[in-house]
Amino acid sequence: MNLRDDERLDALYANDIQIIQSPSVFSFSLDAVLLANFPRIPKRGTVVDLCAGNGAVGLFIAKKTTAKIHQIEIQERLADMGQRSITLNQLADQVTMHHLDLKETFSLLPKESCDLVLCNPPYFKSAPLHKTNPNEHLALARHEITTNLQEVVTCASQLLKMKGHFALVHRPERLLDILAALKTARLAPKRIQFVYPKAEKDANILLVEAIKDGKEDGLKILPPLVVYDEHDQYQPAIKELLYGQP
Amino acid sequence: MNLRDDERLDALYANDIQIIQSPSVFSFSLDAVLLANFPRIPKRGTVVDLCAGNGAVGLFIAKKTTAKIHQIEIQERLADMGQRSITLNQLADQVTMHHLDLKETFSLLPKESCDLVLCNPPYFKSAPLHKTNPNEHLALARHEITTNLQEVVTCASQLLKMKGHFALVHRPERLLDILAALKTARLAPKRIQFVYPKAEKDANILLVEAIKDGKEDGLKILPPLVVYDEHDQYQPAIKELLYGQP
Repeated sequence: MNLRDDERLDALYANDIQIIQSPSVFSFSLDAVLLANFPRIPKRGTVVDLCAGNGAVGLFIAKKTTAKIHQIEIQERLADMGQRSITLNQLADQVTMHHLDLKETFSLLPKESCDLVLCNPPYFKSAPLHKTNPNEHLALARHEITTNLQEVVTCASQLLKMKGHFALVHRPERLLDILAALKTARLAPKRIQFVYPKAEKDANILLVEAIKDGKEDGLKILPPLVVYDEHDQYQPAIKELLYGQP
Repeated sequence: MNLRDDERLDALYANDIQIIQSPSVFSFSLDAVLLANFPRIPKRGTVVDLCAGNGAVGLFIAKKTTAKIHQIEIQERLADMGQRSITLNQLADQVTMHHLDLKETFSLLPKESCDLVLCNPPYFKSAPLHKTNPNEHLALARHEITTNLQEVVTCASQLLKMKGHFALVHRPERLLDILAALKTARLAPKRIQFVYPKAEKDANILLVEAIKDGKEDGLKILPPLVVYDEHDQYQPAIKELLYGQP
């Protein structure tokens, strides 16, 4: 097993998956675990993870489906970590990491060919360089520098078959942008869940599932997901996502 | 005190207000209490309650402000109940009920004259008559028969001064319609709160506060408001709204 520089091996116990991470380059967060557990995962077909980072989301869903899973990541360093994690988990027959700008997605995959697209994109609007993270790897993962919300959502929509599903994790303060981007890309939101750090705090994570060319009615706001209890311990639902038991 | 037909007198203990209600005509619900407690209430100026029903919302906020409160209700029977409740609570100097179609609002109040507009409108799209409530009073209060979401929101916006606030209670499944209507009417949503009947249920009430000609950023999703606990008793926050103590 090859670990480079400050890389370490972390586990998601709930899915029995090991992931190569690096604090100075990229580490998956709760957001990726929430995203992987949010949409209905098709039993077969084709699944794409856009803005895949070190490939956590695709690895987390791999054992729930026989679908081929394509991961697209623009940063070579992250794609390399992700490819080694795929090998480490013996999932190379099912999961493939592509070091690729998502603008080049259709050099790889045909339009209207996918059943599910997942995405944990950069959350923050691009800011002057001195205000973004001085670490280039982290800046690219967090800020809309190489892509932006509309581009990601449009790419997802073009990948999807009619009635295919798109699942996105993002920040609640971008809700208006997100809904506008989905509408522009013919994606109808059907399920939204807000995640609150504590019961008395504003939401800080938003999950949304949309259907390509779906009807614009029947939107559900799912039950609130609260991360920590009053003693700063994970709530049972979160423990189950992380450890496989409440 | 004149009570007609099947009218009865109900109290909102938290605000020490008595309200004339009738199960066959209109009774205020938790939605009205939530709406009255949602926005920042200006200390003075002019407040309007559109689709006022029996006037519950305006009465609930009266003691928190010295602002003049105008209530607009299209149903004569409801406006009459509301006017008698105003008298009963000795609030006639501050609160006025107008029996008026909101299309006629500007025969009464100048445009851009108000600091806050509140609205608990009919929630459901207009359906064929046989599918609406056979009771005409209840059908008009619940279905978009005499007005609709965009008309209500546009009326509210026209009433408001620049940077005036609009507060709406509605159903979460109409979220996309609501955000589109607000945008059309130059109202920028700033605070949204979802209300869940129980912790593990989908949201069934949506509260939104928007600012006229506000910037379209800084949207907050407030902490989840859960109505009942696992023993079907009101949660402390709801008890406080209804009874003035948790």
